[in-house]
This record gives sequence, C-alpha cells and structure tokens, in this order.
Amino acid sequence: MTTESAETADSFHVFDTTLRDGAQREGINLTVADKLAIARHLDDFGVGFIEGGWPGANPRDTEFFARAQQEIDFRHAQLVAFGSTRRPGAKASEDPQVRALVESGAPVVTLVAKAHDRHVELALRTTLDENVAMVRDTVAHLRERGRRVFVDCEHFFDGYRANPEYAKSVVRAAAEAGADVVVLCDTNGGMLPAQIQAVVSTVLADTGARLGIHAQDDTGCAVANTLAAVDGGATHVQCTANGYGERVGNANLFPVVAALELKYDKRVLPEGALADMTRISHAVAEIVNLAPSTHQPYVGVSAFAHKGGLHASAIKVDPDLYQHIAPELVGNTMRMLVSDMAGRASVELKGRELGIDLGGDRDLVGRVVGRVKERELKGYTYEAADASFELMLREEVEGRARGYFRTESWRAIVEDRPDGTHANEATVKLWAKGERIVSTAEGNGPVNALDRAMRVGLERIYPQLAKFELVDYKVRILEGRHGTESTTRVLITTGDGAGEWSTVGVGENVIAASWQALEDAYTYGLLRAGVEPAQ
Amino acid sequence: MTTESAETADSFHVFDTTLRDGAQREGINLTVADKLAIARHLDDFGVGFIEGGWPGANPRDTEFFARAQQEIDFRHAQLVAFGSTRRPGAKASEDPQVRALVESGAPVVTLVAKAHDRHVELALRTTLDENVAMVRDTVAHLRERGRRVFVDCEHFFDGYRANPEYAKSVVRAAAEAGADVVVLCDTNGGMLPAQIQAVVSTVLADTGARLGIHAQDDTGCAVANTLAAVDGGATHVQCTANGYGERVGNANLFPVVAALELKYDKRVLPEGALADMTRISHAVAEIVNLAPSTHQPYVGVSAFAHKGGLHASAIKVDPDLYQHIAPELVGNTMRMLVSDMAGRASVELKGRELGIDLGGDRDLVGRVVGRVKERELKGYTYEAADASFELMLREEVEGRARGYFRTESWRAIVEDRPDGTHANEATVKLWAKGERIVSTAEGNGPVNALDRAMRVGLERIYPQLAKFELVDYKVRILEGRHGTESTTRVLITTGDGAGEWSTVGVGENVIAASWQALEDAYTYGLLRAGVEPAQ
Repeated sequence: MTTESAETADSFHVFDTTLRDGAQREGINLTVADKLAIARHLDDFGVGFIEGGWPGANPRDTEFFARAQQEIDFRHAQLVAFGSTRRPGAKASEDPQVRALVESGAPVVTLVAKAHDRHVELALRTTLDENVAMVRDTVAHLRERGRRVFVDCEHFFDGYRANPEYAKSVVRAAAEAGADVVVLCDTNGGMLPAQIQAVVSTVLADTGARLGIHAQDDTGCAVANTLAAVDGGATHVQCTANGYGERVGNANLFPVVAALELKYDKRVLPEGALADMTRISHAVAEIVNLAPSTHQPYVGVSAFAHKGGLHASAIKVDPDLYQHIAPELVGNTMRMLVSDMAGRASVELKGRELGIDLGGDRDLVGRVVGRVKERELKGYTYEAADASFELMLREEVEGRARGYFRTESWRAIVEDRPDGTHANEATVKLWAKGERIVSTAEGNGPVNALDRAMRVGLERIYPQLAKFELVDYKVRILEGRHGTESTTRVLITTGDGAGEWSTVGVGENVIAASWQALEDAYTYGLLRAGVEPAQ
Repeated sequence: MTTESAETADSFHVFDTTLRDGAQREGINLTVADKLAIARHLDDFGVGFIEGGWPGANPRDTEFFARAQQEIDFRHAQLVAFGSTRRPGAKASEDPQVRALVESGAPVVTLVAKAHDRHVELALRTTLDENVAMVRDTVAHLRERGRRVFVDCEHFFDGYRANPEYAKSVVRAAAEAGADVVVLCDTNGGMLPAQIQAVVSTVLADTGARLGIHAQDDTGCAVANTLAAVDGGATHVQCTANGYGERVGNANLFPVVAALELKYDKRVLPEGALADMTRISHAVAEIVNLAPSTHQPYVGVSAFAHKGGLHASAIKVDPDLYQHIAPELVGNTMRMLVSDMAGRASVELKGRELGIDLGGDRDLVGRVVGRVKERELKGYTYEAADASFELMLREEVEGRARGYFRTESWRAIVEDRPDGTHANEATVKLWAKGERIVSTAEGNGPVNALDRAMRVGLERIYPQLAKFELVDYKVRILEGRHGTESTTRVLITTGDGAGEWSTVGVGENVIAASWQALEDAYTYGLLRAGVEPAQ
C-alpha cells in the first residue's frame, strides 16, 4: 500500500470512485467479484485512491473491504471507505455507521457532509451549528483512530451560492478537525467551468484548506469543471472510470488524467500507465457489462478514426496535423478504415506481453492483425479474452491449432415441467487421442450441462481438467435492436486454483457461443497445464 | 426564411452542422430523405442556421439543397452551403467548386479556409500569401453574388499557437473582404476551455472581427470550449445534434443551447423551443439510426433518474434540492429508479409516475416495498424493467395477477450437428380462455424459438400480439464468481409500433429467465392494448 514513485506523490491526488459513486449509474449492478476485478485494474492503472463503497451500509460493501485487503496486493492505490458524518445529537464513537467505517480497516475514509444550508434543514433536519459539530466530531474521531480523512462537501457550489459563509464554515471545520482534503462537490452537476474556478480559488484563499473537486456531468462539462477546479487550486480530483455515475454520470477519469498528463504536463500517474488507458477503460466496461463507448475521448475506438479522402494523404505526410495527440500515448491507435481495431503495434505489444516474440516477422504480425480484424467484425473481442487471443496467436506462430480434442456435435435440452422444476441435459460427441467419446450430463442450465458433459467425457483422457472451474460467465447481445437477428458474445473465465484465464465465443445464439468459449477454455487450460497436444 | 422573434435575432447565432460535419461520424450514412427529415426537426427546434452539406462535392448534397429549398418551409433557420476557398492560382469566379456554392441557391455560404501556416504549406501546398488571397477573393466573389459569408478557419487554435500573426491575418482578410463571421475552429479538438477563451478574446481585441467557435470533443470539453469562446466574446456557435461528428464528435447542440438559455439566461432559441429538446434529440437519433444515448446531458432517459432511498424521501420534500434544473424545461422527466436502496418514498413516486395512486395506503406501499426487496435479493432489477414493476404493482393493487394465459410447461432444444449447422426448436404448452394450446416453432436460438412458439400458440386467441416485436435482449449473469451456481437475469424490450416496454426475468439459467421475461412482456403488451384478462 505504498506509492511507488515520487511522481505520484501525495501532492496531487487521483481519486477514483467508480466502485462507489460510479455504481450509482442506472443499469450497473456490481457483485463483490466485479468490484475486486475493477479495483485490480484501477490499481494497475495507478490511481492513488480507490473508494470501494460504504461498509456497513450493505453486506456487499462490507464483504468487499474484507476481501480487497486480503486478496489484492495494491501496488499504487490506497483503499478508501465512504461514509457519513455521525447522526445529529449522537456521539461519533457510538454511531454504528461510523464504527463500520473504522472496522472496514480501510486506511482512508471519505466522509460526506452537508455544506448547503437548505439541505441541512430540509434533508438532514438539524441545525446549522449541529451539522458543523457533526463534521468536526466525526473527523476528529476518525483521526484519533489513525485514519486519514477526506471530507466530501455535498452540494457545495449550490450551497456556496445560497450562503457562502456557511459553506466555508463547513470547510474550515473539516480542515481544523484534521481532514487532509476538503472536496467541493457539484452534486447536482449544474455548474460551468468559470463558476467552478472562481469558487474554488475564493474558498482556497479564504480557508487555506487543501481542496478537491467532485464534478457530475449534468451540463456535459464534468471534465472541464474538474480541470477548472485544478486551475483554481484544487489538488485532488474525484473521477470514475468511463464517467459512470448517477444520472448523466461523473467526471470521467480517463480524459481528466490524460489532460493533466498531456496538456498540463503534470505527472499524476506512474510512468507508462497512460499507455494502458484504452485497455483499462475497455476492461472495466466489460466487467460492468456495458459496451465501451465507441466515441469516448482518447479511448474510444473512434477517437482516432479518420474518414479517408481529403485527409488521408496529408495524414501520411504528417499525422500530427490531424491529431491532437499521438494515439499510442493512451494505448489507442489511429484508424483509417472502418473496422480496423487492432494495429500491428498492439499485436506485437500483446505478443511480447504473452512471452511470444513476433519482433522480426512482419508477415506473421500481418496475418494476426488480419485475423483479429476479421473476427472483430463478427463480434469477437480480445481485450477481455487473453486466452483466446493467445490460442489464435500460437496457432499462427506454430502453424496449427492446439488440438487436444475435436468436437463432432453436441445437443442441449432445457425443459420446464408442469411441477415448476427444470431439467437441463446435454450430450456431447468428441474425439480425443483417436477415441470417440459420447457423454451426457445434467446441469442447472444448458451451458452448465454442456460443461459437465465435456468434463465427464474428457477427464479420463486429460485428468488435469478435474481442477478446472468455471468462475465467471458473461453474455452480451450485439447489435441489440430488433433482437432476433442479433449475434451473441460470451466471455468465460476459468480457473485451476493457481490462476484464471478468459475466453470468448460468438454465435447466433447463447448456447452456440458458450460452446465455443468452453472449447477455448479447456484447450487453454490444458496448454497452461503443460499437456502435449495429441489428437 | 425569416427570423421570427427578436429574441433569436442576428446578434447571436446558433449554427447547426449536423448534416455536414455531424455526418462525418463513423457509422452515420445519411440519405437525402434523412437529411430533409433532420433539417425539419432542426428548424422546428429553432436553430438560426442549418449547414446542409457541400453542394457540388457529391450528388447527394447537391440534391439536398435543391429539394430542401423546394420542400421545406423554413420557419426559423437559414440554409447554409459549405465549401472551400478557390484553388491556388485560379480565379474565384472560374472555380467550379465555388460556382456550385452559388448555384446551390443557399443564402449563406460557409467557406473553409486554412489559418495554420504548416497546413497551408503541407496540405494546401501553396504560399502563405496566396492562401490569404484565396480567402479574400472567394469571400468577395460570394458577397458580390449576394451571399452572406461565414469563414471557418480550420486548425485555428493550433495555428495560432504556431504563428499567431499569420492566423490573425487570415481572420482580418476574411472580415475585410466582407465575411460576417469568422469562425475559429479547434479542428483536432485538442484544446481546453481556458486556452480557447484566452485566444478568442485576444483575437477579438486584435482584429475586431465578429467571431464564432467550432469545437471538437477530443478532450471531452467541446461544450465547455464552446461556452468558453462565448465568454471570450464569440457570438456564433457551431454545433451538431447529439454531438455527432468525426472521431469523438462535435460540440453537442443540446447542452450548449441549454447552458446558454438556462445558465447564461440568454435567449438563443424561439420561445418554448427548449421544452422540445428531448423529443428533437431522440428523433434525430432515430433518423440517423443510432440508439439515443441514455446518459446524454439534459435529454438522456437517465439524465433525471434518481437512485437510492436516502434521496427519495428528500426529493418528495423538494425535487429542486437534487436537480440542477426542472427536467420539464428541456422536455425530460424525473424518474425514480426502483432499486435495492429504495424505500417507500420511491415506490410512491414511481406509482404516481405510472398513474397508479398509492397515496393513502401505507399497507399497500409496505407490501410493494417488501416484494421489491425480496425479489431484488433474488436478482431481479426493476430499474430497467418498468413493465414488470407495473405488473407487480397492479397485482398488489388489484389483488390478482393479470392472467391472460398460464404456462403448463415448455421445452427448448439446441443441437450442433456434425456439419456445423445448428437446430433450435421449442415447444410450449399453455392455457388461455379455458383452452389448452400446444405449439412448436424453430428459431435462430432457443429464446427466439420459445418466443415464436408462444406467439404461434397465442395469436389466434389474442390477435393483438401480432404487432409485438422483440426489440432488445440483455443477459446478465449475477454473482458471477463460481459461475455454475450463479443466477441469470434477462431484460427484454418489446415494441408494438406505438411504444416499447421492458420486462425482467430471473432464473437458474438463461432460458428459464428468458421465459419469465417473455411472459411479462406478452402480459404487459396485452394490458397496454386494453385487452380484458380472461384466463
């Protein structure tokens, strides 16, 4: 839990709240496993703080804090628990909600506090003085318990407009009680950059507190508002991956850090992290099960896509004439044609990452890029399916597929019986080591039944796969309008106790797509186990 | 072709370029009929100028200008033709491209001109002086032909950074030759608001020309950049509906005009137009065949959607506490999301939204809250499944379920044959109006086969469902770790030509969950159609 480099030192905070405020987005519903997976990506990316949720508010968040501290070896980020100031008229030490924050074990706590007089009266139903006391007491209590404290002043900008002296008194109370940062929140998202900058610089001058910014995107200006706050003197920015968040969303982490690094020339991430930005953005989208926005600044697949024609020849002369930054800086690529998602450079990079050197062989790289393009056109995605990508890459390098087994046919039946129970049965016909295997199994669903039938059939020949376990399964319908003609993509994560790998399948229906992903999952697992292919 | 009200007078221009620059977006391909339909919507909305395309550059744009002037009775907007300055070394009057602009009949012409010295040399391959002469000559020629002229200075901000004196000399040449507005373009979209404002105000002071702004969204700041230019003295804003445009996109018309009207208190649209904004935004999205962005500022369906029980009770007290504007101002509506954080207040609000009064009945509301919580624990979500929520609510209010039909049993079979083809077959056994129905159908997947079997079976009894169409289908695996024990949630959107509704199903596998969502979808569709239940 230490900050690795001087460049990401405490003087400027990149604070991510995808797991707390981002999860408020309509349609997002994260499991504990999802939260852990996202936290790993954010830590890889190098944010300084990961706000994980509200421990005590629901069992899921409590479990996340317990497991995150056991299971994740954070390299860059510190884990932050979110909670509220104590209840009116109570002691902070006796407030069960405050106690849950301490018990979460998180080294940092963000406390939400009211700074808008009307909210204190109408929503909190207490006096203005008691609200200030609640801030002071709760911060002091958490400081005594050794926690670092940030205070989120909810509705700060509206509150400042209504009653600037009161809003500032809350900031002062928080800072005096020991809060390291007081975060000014545009909770309703109605502000514009010029207003934000003016208020931040005035509050900074008047209170001397270290200030942060939390912007919502209701005017479409959350990124600009965040930067305006930095212009005004804020040194702590709260963002979410891909801008997920309530209503329109929050300030998007990616364009904020890209602007700070590339436009402000400010080092806010570990060396080299920015070049991972596109991958991280897409991986988080896959985990929350939303299609990555194709038109997202910096990281969208269209962000550096040029329609040919007039520009094309000039771009060849000098791409910088038509791009505000080199796309490689953020891990993206320039595209001249419609469907070109993978460039040579990213395939080579990926090969190196997998320990497969493609350095010299231009033809080979060209063939892989061609296959990736062709398959992505059909709906495959390799960003979240490393194992399927590696199988394809090895097939090109080795000139043949890893043929541990061959599928002759399969069948799945799902039956709803009059008594309300379901029967799921699958039969698979496979060939392995010259032998024809026919096996049937039941499961709690058709994919589970197929998985079991495959396992039952192959286990005798490849005992290694007894350890394989299907740990995650995601389905996405592509081209979702007029649903019946759509394509289905399935991502499967399989584990063997020592590690996990992800595979992809695409088909005209969920069962066919799942079967493909299962085939890759078993093949890759056997490869991982060091089994020699022998069909 | 006149401006109706003093409030939308010439002193401030809302200039739309959806049909020209917006059409550069990857995935958009507009027919002439599409362009005419969009132009009508934009004119209804009250923009001052509609840039229709580049007449002469392609037959489609030439046809659009001819037909738009014949077929559309513009109430607010003037039609604008886009084109380029004359070729180097030629006369403007003899340049066929310039001639096509005149022949288009459009009363206003936007000329694109280079203002960045390197672009003049590398892309245009002429001298800096000749480029200035090209601007001067072409503007003067079009003015002589009675056209109003705006000049778009491409790559202005990058050019200004490289060579401010040259960039300003192009602005001066355009203004002196008779251009009404000189538009500073951030063509690569790399600028931030503070930079834009500084340059616009300096250029305004140094040249005295009337200035406009054209911002691209590559930093995620196009809306803020447009407003920053207005702060700097620009009185002409170029935008596109929904921010469509090349790469990431252009400045989005809707948040720009909403900010000007509601935050700057500036009248830039005809009286009452803003309240049409949500409808216009969605209509344009339908025409270009892109799903409307659910999270677009002001107009997205999520833009005023509130989650969380804590907020809900305060929203009942005063919605303004939690919204930066009243959603009705932009033609949108507040929505309460029914989620596991929901309490009584959000259920009551939701009931009111659906036209079902729960006001007095505390027991009833308590029962509904209890059922929502219990079902959400099982994996249901009602946020995105209004129709399933309404069915549940009506069941509690009316004391019985809407029983249009009853399921006895069903079966789905998916078979992968040795030749690589798939067979998907479903059989359903239902009861409706005292009759037992057994029907079988094939489909491109098991859910599609079940949907068809259900439809075939019920259509004779309920002919209304012939119009139903499955328009979207989403699958989410819940508690995704240790995949085999997980629960599956399916969200289905169904349409009947007049509207769409969403339903949810949860089960131990995707087929069982889909069947539940289909049952709700058909039940709600029949309820919507006013069919009396008769089991």
